Amino acid sequence: MSFYGTSVEYGLHCIVWLIGPRDKPVSSRELADIQGVPPAQVAKIFPKLEKAGLVVSSGGISGGYRLARSPEEITILDVVDAIEGDRRLFDCREVRRGCALFGGDPPGWMTRGVCGIHAAMLRAEKSMRAELARTTLLDLAKGLPAPAGFSEEVGRWLDERAAARERSRMTAVKNSTRHRSPKD
Amino acid sequence: MSFYGTSVEYGLHCIVWLIGPRDKPVSSRELADIQGVPPAQVAKIFPKLEKAGLVVSSGGISGGYRLARSPEEITILDVVDAIEGDRRLFDCREVRRGCALFGGDPPGWMTRGVCGIHAAMLRAEKSMRAELARTTLLDLAKGLPAPAGFSEEVGRWLDERAAARERSRMTAVKNSTRHRSPKD
Repeated sequence: MSFYGTSVEYGLHCIVWLIGPRDKPVSSRELADIQGVPPAQVAKIFPKLEKAGLVVSSGGISGGYRLARSPEEITILDVVDAIEGDRRLFDCREVRRGCALFGGDPPGWMTRGVCGIHAAMLRAEKSMRAELARTTLLDLAKGLPAPAGFSEEVGRWLDERAAARERSRMTAVKNSTRHRSPKD
Repeated sequence: MSFYGTSVEYGLHCIVWLIGPRDKPVSSRELADIQGVPPAQVAKIFPKLEKAGLVVSSGGISGGYRLARSPEEITILDVVDAIEGDRRLFDCREVRRGCALFGGDPPGWMTRGVCGIHAAMLRAEKSMRAELARTTLLDLAKGLPAPAGFSEEVGRWLDERAAARERSRMTAVKNSTRHRSPKD
């Protein structure tokens, strides 16, 4: 199993679609559907992105998400941290303290500072995180050589999808009102 | 849960104890006991280190392991790869191919080359691995400011332990022979 799972992957793929000239909020459902990824999982990811200050939600049934700041100010590391929290490369269990030679009372030279193995892991983690912080959402969007008009096409797809969902919601409301007896 | 688990931690802590002027092989049992870590887990780690060419075993009941090459030629990354195999930071599921706008037939510009998100993860992984390859077992040993004579003290502990285990094995063999009936 990889270190970063599908939540990081889906979260990154979905948040990138919030970049664009279009200023309407997009629901997590639409973001999942346009990617072909599980809506239930994406619905759990976006509150984390919101909590981390990367997106803002506009309430209401037909509401959705917008980026909270410009896409050149959000890095891959920001998104990863928002979704994964404080997940580490390595958890040091201070094995050096248990050395049998010292019967539970290790000398100072053995336990001073950070364990050398842990220190090397921390350097590796720092280097990995620095690299993830080097790429922004804007870099990701620019890396996709989409043809002119693609952004508008996406906008139309999202609008039609949102409108269809709203129509189906209204029909459901109407039907439930029609079939309700006066006593309800 | 961290990316690298206890097997990597115990493996690194144990293999470091094979460094030294002492040229007797050490069993994985002794290596586990001197660290205070689970012998059964360490017994599963050393065959992986051997398969990767980092240690060599000398057979027999009282056998054990030696480093297969000098400790400045074995890096943390070598040990991690031997234990974890080809574990990745990120598994790309090619989400971009499932974009609903293209109904299962994404255009070339969408799928050409490595996905930008995957590429950023690969750069981060490369950077992390490069850092792990920078530290050798000798660096780890040198980082521990052990007092003069410590290496000999470790040697004595390991020798006594191995001798005690051999005595107890011989007693068990003797007893089983003594209690065996002639018909066995």
